[in-house]
Amino acid sequence: MASESGKLWGGRFVGAVDPIMEKFNSSIAYDRHLWEADVQGSKAYSRGLEKAGLLTKAEMDQILHGLDKVAEEWAQGTFKLNPNDEDIHTANERRLKELIGETAGKLHTGRSRNDQVVTDLRLWMRQNCSKLSALLRELIRTMVDRAEAERDVLFPGYTHLQRAQPIRWSHWILSHAVALTRDSERLLEVQKRVNVLPLGSGAIAGNPLGVDRELLRAELNFGAITLNSMDATSERDFVAEFLFWASLCMTHLSRMAEDLILYGTKEFSFVQLSDAYSTGSSLMPQKKNPDSLELIRSKAGRVFGRCAGLLMTLKGLPSTYNKDLQEDKEAVFEVSDTMSAVLQVATGVISTLQIHRDNMARALSPDMLATDLAYYLVRKGMPFRQAHEASGKAVFMAETKGVPLNQLSLRELQTISPLFLGDVSHVWDYSHSVEQYAALGGTASSSVDWQIGQVRALLRAWQA
Amino acid sequence: MASESGKLWGGRFVGAVDPIMEKFNSSIAYDRHLWEADVQGSKAYSRGLEKAGLLTKAEMDQILHGLDKVAEEWAQGTFKLNPNDEDIHTANERRLKELIGETAGKLHTGRSRNDQVVTDLRLWMRQNCSKLSALLRELIRTMVDRAEAERDVLFPGYTHLQRAQPIRWSHWILSHAVALTRDSERLLEVQKRVNVLPLGSGAIAGNPLGVDRELLRAELNFGAITLNSMDATSERDFVAEFLFWASLCMTHLSRMAEDLILYGTKEFSFVQLSDAYSTGSSLMPQKKNPDSLELIRSKAGRVFGRCAGLLMTLKGLPSTYNKDLQEDKEAVFEVSDTMSAVLQVATGVISTLQIHRDNMARALSPDMLATDLAYYLVRKGMPFRQAHEASGKAVFMAETKGVPLNQLSLRELQTISPLFLGDVSHVWDYSHSVEQYAALGGTASSSVDWQIGQVRALLRAWQA
Amino acid sequence: MASESGKLWGGRFVGAVDPIMEKFNSSIAYDRHLWEADVQGSKAYSRGLEKAGLLTKAEMDQILHGLDKVAEEWAQGTFKLNPNDEDIHTANERRLKELIGETAGKLHTGRSRNDQVVTDLRLWMRQNCSKLSALLRELIRTMVDRAEAERDVLFPGYTHLQRAQPIRWSHWILSHAVALTRDSERLLEVQKRVNVLPLGSGAIAGNPLGVDRELLRAELNFGAITLNSMDATSERDFVAEFLFWASLCMTHLSRMAEDLILYGTKEFSFVQLSDAYSTGSSLMPQKKNPDSLELIRSKAGRVFGRCAGLLMTLKGLPSTYNKDLQEDKEAVFEVSDTMSAVLQVATGVISTLQIHRDNMARALSPDMLATDLAYYLVRKGMPFRQAHEASGKAVFMAETKGVPLNQLSLRELQTISPLFLGDVSHVWDYSHSVEQYAALGGTASSSVDWQIGQVRALLRAWQA
Amino acid sequence: MASESGKLWGGRFVGAVDPIMEKFNSSIAYDRHLWEADVQGSKAYSRGLEKAGLLTKAEMDQILHGLDKVAEEWAQGTFKLNPNDEDIHTANERRLKELIGETAGKLHTGRSRNDQVVTDLRLWMRQNCSKLSALLRELIRTMVDRAEAERDVLFPGYTHLQRAQPIRWSHWILSHAVALTRDSERLLEVQKRVNVLPLGSGAIAGNPLGVDRELLRAELNFGAITLNSMDATSERDFVAEFLFWASLCMTHLSRMAEDLILYGTKEFSFVQLSDAYSTGSSLMPQKKNPDSLELIRSKAGRVFGRCAGLLMTLKGLPSTYNKDLQEDKEAVFEVSDTMSAVLQVATGVISTLQIHRDNMARALSPDMLATDLAYYLVRKGMPFRQAHEASGKAVFMAETKGVPLNQLSLRELQTISPLFLGDVSHVWDYSHSVEQYAALGGTASSSVDWQIGQVRALLRAWQA
Repeated sequence: MASESGKLWGGRFVGAVDPIMEKFNSSIAYDRHLWEADVQGSKAYSRGLEKAGLLTKAEMDQILHGLDKVAEEWAQGTFKLNPNDEDIHTANERRLKELIGETAGKLHTGRSRNDQVVTDLRLWMRQNCSKLSALLRELIRTMVDRAEAERDVLFPGYTHLQRAQPIRWSHWILSHAVALTRDSERLLEVQKRVNVLPLGSGAIAGNPLGVDRELLRAELNFGAITLNSMDATSERDFVAEFLFWASLCMTHLSRMAEDLILYGTKEFSFVQLSDAYSTGSSLMPQKKNPDSLELIRSKAGRVFGRCAGLLMTLKGLPSTYNKDLQEDKEAVFEVSDTMSAVLQVATGVISTLQIHRDNMARALSPDMLATDLAYYLVRKGMPFRQAHEASGKAVFMAETKGVPLNQLSLRELQTISPLFLGDVSHVWDYSHSVEQYAALGGTASSSVDWQIGQVRALLRAWQA
Repeated sequence: MASESGKLWGGRFVGAVDPIMEKFNSSIAYDRHLWEADVQGSKAYSRGLEKAGLLTKAEMDQILHGLDKVAEEWAQGTFKLNPNDEDIHTANERRLKELIGETAGKLHTGRSRNDQVVTDLRLWMRQNCSKLSALLRELIRTMVDRAEAERDVLFPGYTHLQRAQPIRWSHWILSHAVALTRDSERLLEVQKRVNVLPLGSGAIAGNPLGVDRELLRAELNFGAITLNSMDATSERDFVAEFLFWASLCMTHLSRMAEDLILYGTKEFSFVQLSDAYSTGSSLMPQKKNPDSLELIRSKAGRVFGRCAGLLMTLKGLPSTYNKDLQEDKEAVFEVSDTMSAVLQVATGVISTLQIHRDNMARALSPDMLATDLAYYLVRKGMPFRQAHEASGKAVFMAETKGVPLNQLSLRELQTISPLFLGDVSHVWDYSHSVEQYAALGGTASSSVDWQIGQVRALLRAWQA
Repeated sequence: MASESGKLWGGRFVGAVDPIMEKFNSSIAYDRHLWEADVQGSKAYSRGLEKAGLLTKAEMDQILHGLDKVAEEWAQGTFKLNPNDEDIHTANERRLKELIGETAGKLHTGRSRNDQVVTDLRLWMRQNCSKLSALLRELIRTMVDRAEAERDVLFPGYTHLQRAQPIRWSHWILSHAVALTRDSERLLEVQKRVNVLPLGSGAIAGNPLGVDRELLRAELNFGAITLNSMDATSERDFVAEFLFWASLCMTHLSRMAEDLILYGTKEFSFVQLSDAYSTGSSLMPQKKNPDSLELIRSKAGRVFGRCAGLLMTLKGLPSTYNKDLQEDKEAVFEVSDTMSAVLQVATGVISTLQIHRDNMARALSPDMLATDLAYYLVRKGMPFRQAHEASGKAVFMAETKGVPLNQLSLRELQTISPLFLGDVSHVWDYSHSVEQYAALGGTASSSVDWQIGQVRALLRAWQA
Repeated sequence: MASESGKLWGGRFVGAVDPIMEKFNSSIAYDRHLWEADVQGSKAYSRGLEKAGLLTKAEMDQILHGLDKVAEEWAQGTFKLNPNDEDIHTANERRLKELIGETAGKLHTGRSRNDQVVTDLRLWMRQNCSKLSALLRELIRTMVDRAEAERDVLFPGYTHLQRAQPIRWSHWILSHAVALTRDSERLLEVQKRVNVLPLGSGAIAGNPLGVDRELLRAELNFGAITLNSMDATSERDFVAEFLFWASLCMTHLSRMAEDLILYGTKEFSFVQLSDAYSTGSSLMPQKKNPDSLELIRSKAGRVFGRCAGLLMTLKGLPSTYNKDLQEDKEAVFEVSDTMSAVLQVATGVISTLQIHRDNMARALSPDMLATDLAYYLVRKGMPFRQAHEASGKAVFMAETKGVPLNQLSLRELQTISPLFLGDVSHVWDYSHSVEQYAALGGTASSSVDWQIGQVRALLRAWQA
């Protein structure tokens, strides 16, 4: 008799079970992470039932007390799972019944696992978003602090990985920090949509017993309630959004990691990872590998894979709850763990990274000032397109002669344009170059200060 | 001599070209869509140059006038592309020069294709987001109107594609409309991040010529300016977000399409597509296929594929502009076109769909009231878990006897529980059933009205 | 001192560690699955070292004996991990050293973790592919057996989910079985490329100590050796191929699951899942949900997500080994477990599924013979396009009159075409209809028999 | 009247059309690429009809002649599309009817668009696979030729992007060529599965008119016929496999591109792209950007996106043909075009790339011989783990002293191990180093020759 197995649906099924199917179907191995949210949700729901007259005050107290006991067992690691506990909801209710008897059977009145599981997941994710937000802000803060401290260091800016123009090292740090501020903003938006209460939606049709969903919302401190019970129990937008948030954040971190891996090569030699974030080789004694950065870079794939997987699972699914949706939780847990580790490791890397200022300075070369040379001519009145072409000729001339661009004589320059005069020598000063880029967002010190101020203001706003 | 070819970088390259590489590199075939944005951006930039003293008023007017002429040619379809016009920016500037002469060469002063192209794309997308928002709202409005009009139609609600509980047809419509309201909300958030101005960032280091980016922002009506020039020229978050927005919206529409395809089968026979949205068979004369809905469902894959593709392209890319980023535009254009068509076709389908009320009514069966039967016992004081089991026994008894659940005699029911009394007969009324689900979000008419009000309020708010 | 921690790279690192980084970097939590392959690979390698004169016979025997002991501990569950065992290779070698002393330090001579780890993974996957092949063949065999047994059952064939033509139920089963034969063929091709030995490639440059890779290949029974040491240590094609194999196989199974979920609805009522593969509802006592099939359908997303994730991780990675590649193993293990469960559950579902022949028969309707009606006219000499149109008119006439297609009188039909004669009545026999489709691959019994024979022949060929 | 529009399904539909739906549904904009395959398939099918007695010889000749005329019009660019030509099949048959009259209406006898379209696509793809195979082999051949010619050039091998060991430049080239040989092998396997004939499967049930599918197969030179008509008309494995083939091939090319982009930076300066494959900057006159390589790298995303999109579209689709499958063709065409361009551009890049031998030589440093130093001790009898540690100590000592590793005196080395003797000086010869790696697959010249021989043998085998 199936009902002997104690399964929730009791009373009806006949026929044997397939142990592989049992395991395939079971989610307790991972949804046990939700134990606290499940207890929290059930406590609120029992208050709602009491308000609706479906529990007496005494029954409610009994249930609340029992649930506290269940939570205590989980917290202390003494909760014992039964083989029939296929998910955390079954497990907690089974245990509650053992602790307080038949009254436990009233807790699920008007509730379905469909609204219960999604309430639990939202509770868990709401808290997790807060944790990740804090870690992300800590990383941004570390970057801004560093940008402020090392504002006077210049090094080559690259486009297409070719040396382009001299920039401030802080400008590079801020370029990544600014990208992360968008992730921070987006995470708050995701969290806002996580923070909507589905409890009281039942399996599909809603709640027929007068449970006050606004009361449940207030009890659980949600920002709003879901609008439609069919949608509420089966939409996983908030999960998809979270996974995509993580994916996009990881592309940012993968790009920062790529930069730092490059800057840490022998060839660039701009930075050196702390030993704590490097690993040696089992074969080559001289090597120190940037494993931390490579792992960060690689996790972009894993995280996006989870996002892709969930979207594919959702595609074309019929309305309302289908078991397919059980795929949501492992994705959330894995991605949350990954993001937590990645953000902390990235913070560690940035805060312990050594920079080689001399190498950075040495890597600046006069050809990186060719654009400034064109601007010199522009300031003398030449249209930019002609100035660009003139500067290009100077570069070609220098290359042909095998000398650095700033070693062309004034006379040689004048064969290209008579607008070149003695003051062209000012062009060749890197510090002077960067200070020209004073429009907001540029690499001049005033602009870098402005950027730091802007990001700090955002951090303060999010903190509040 | 490469400079003869008129390419922007002129003056330096020697060596032949590979025609396959030329075509591989060229983007004019698709970025010509940006012609209007490109002119718009250039006009604003020339105003910025004038303000900064880099153009005289007369030069600016000449450029503005020339750009208007360029735009006119595009609008009238008389713009002629040259073989050397590798992208829309080159094409427009080349034509400007033909029209106004050397002054055209001043327009690009301090500007790079890196900030120009991303400004153009943002301008185009901002407008496109508005269009898609309007189409999406139109679809939601159509659904809400229909939900209001057909509020009294009942039919089976399904979970796991098994008949679950009676619900209102309007409740089903609203379940999909509510999902789309989240897409509408998200699109506004995406648009907010699209609406940030990168112009004035140059290639990487910023703008060194005193161009006032706030003035450019105001000219082009952007909400804010980008914070960091390196990030501004190479981040494509707004593209990725847009593609993901579309992907998630498409999973919603794919689920609605799936439902309607099922409801339109001979077996369900709840709905019938208008001929305008159906297609016949080249082989089977009796067939009428829901091609519109199948195409909607299928496009979820295509759209997400573009999102996946862009994320993979971004993964691990070194800082700042790399040519890899050229992949952004075709994705945006294709997805925009797809979304526009999908939203309009979906609106057409919903507005012309016929429903078969009789079939819907006939599909309701007493076993769908088993949950209500359990609630009957709950209201008599039985704990829900026992009531659920008792109701399950009644279902089993009815199945064993081969009679509908509501044909069990009171005596038979009383063998299961003495709490069953004569008033159990009220349970078997479907209209009575749905009205019980009166908690907010449920399928009772009061709740459906509330939902309609909530969605209409959102529509009004977005309109404003 | 880092060297005290006993890490493989010993001797050089100074500086503290970050515990989060340690955990982030560690792979022992999952690569312990490779323990057996690791021991197997090391045993072969020690034989290679002895052959090359780098180990004496006695040293080799000592190592072989020690490795057997290590394996025994794993097999018996008595192997104890140290906190410093960051991966299975470190763990096994550390334990070997504890067991046999300094000689253990000779085992890694000329070997790198780069070639070791990929050899282990290939060994593991080779065996796993065999297991999955057997499970897949078992599923196909079950399907073919069932197809043979139920060959006489007719039911509607659908296209666009609209009733199209009568077909044999066996023809439907075989349509899915035939798809799976391609998966079986592909898995053998994947396995062929898994079965190539990288050992002896060192970290990047190869093996400098005269180790005979052909001997290693023979020892480990690989089909070939890798051609280039740089490629060998860093390509993960075989992993990507395996993940894609699983993804494509899962799309097949997701489509079969979708069909069966539909056929199991109240509306179709063609099949009924065994209780062992269904689940009840926590709220609705009358429900029996096809959870097994929904899970199968959903896993297509998860599995493909892993494939997408790995491809993204590989994209743009610099040559040779990077730590990013560590992402390969969890993907392989998770997907292997998933496929194993899915294939077994699918076999269980198919072998215990009940079919409702009466419902299947009842679902056949005369309009599904409209194509045959057109062919009737074709056989009388009418060009198909006209015949198709004529048959379409008959369908329209029947719909308009509200009668089944076969209830149109001969006279009525003759108003459409004079070619209709009394023998048109033969068209309305479903058994006669299906028997017409006798071209190979069609739904006639002869063709179904042929299909069964073809698939059985494939199964025999793969078995051999 | 819908039949006036000339649509294939004629005779039945009433009701207006939505022009957006018409365009949404239409595929002629892209499936016109199939014109030749469509004609080819129709010619074979008319031969099959004649053999089956459904066409007279004269009718067949008339059709064949008409189809040749249709093909001629396409080839000469004179074929005129009608607004009602929604796909290439409709267009060709419509035109045929215009050319030869009513007999054209017999061509579609027993055929459905479902088997027609997939036959056409397979014909097109079979030819396209051959083209791509040839381009891929050309690339491999170019690489092998170059590897042979530059076998004596040494440069640093990297792992984790850190200098690891000296290797031959040819060894690097071959590492990528060998990866591509797997792509070549896989493409042949894909082509084998493309090369299976579905014609004769009808819409779902097969062909009822005695058409001989073996004859069709022979006419069209397919390798086999499909086994099951339901599967044949709706499986797109061969498309998915092709897209994945391209995706995996692109990850290889993206990795090669990444290497070359790095090697072409100022910092590495190992290679220089030909001007034909570089582009200048619109702002910075001195720049020459590796656009060709960046585009190759980026296309990995686009191509995989198409693969991901198709898989998602296929997921959970009900059996047999659904309009969703129309998504297959644009993916195939776009990816085919992309692969064709990428392979040719890659060949151009490799064949015109300049290498800077001096820079390569200069980049070799003694610390890259630390592994060889360890092997020196191994050869003296020290267990590898101790040797590795000893060599690590030498590296640390050299770093501490600020001297290159090979500048440590023998006395200093002996403080680490007494096994160091005068002959340790041989270790510091790079040419000597690489020649040690003589095991098959290593970087010694003998092994590089072996690799070249192996790849050439594969090329010869595929050519045959």
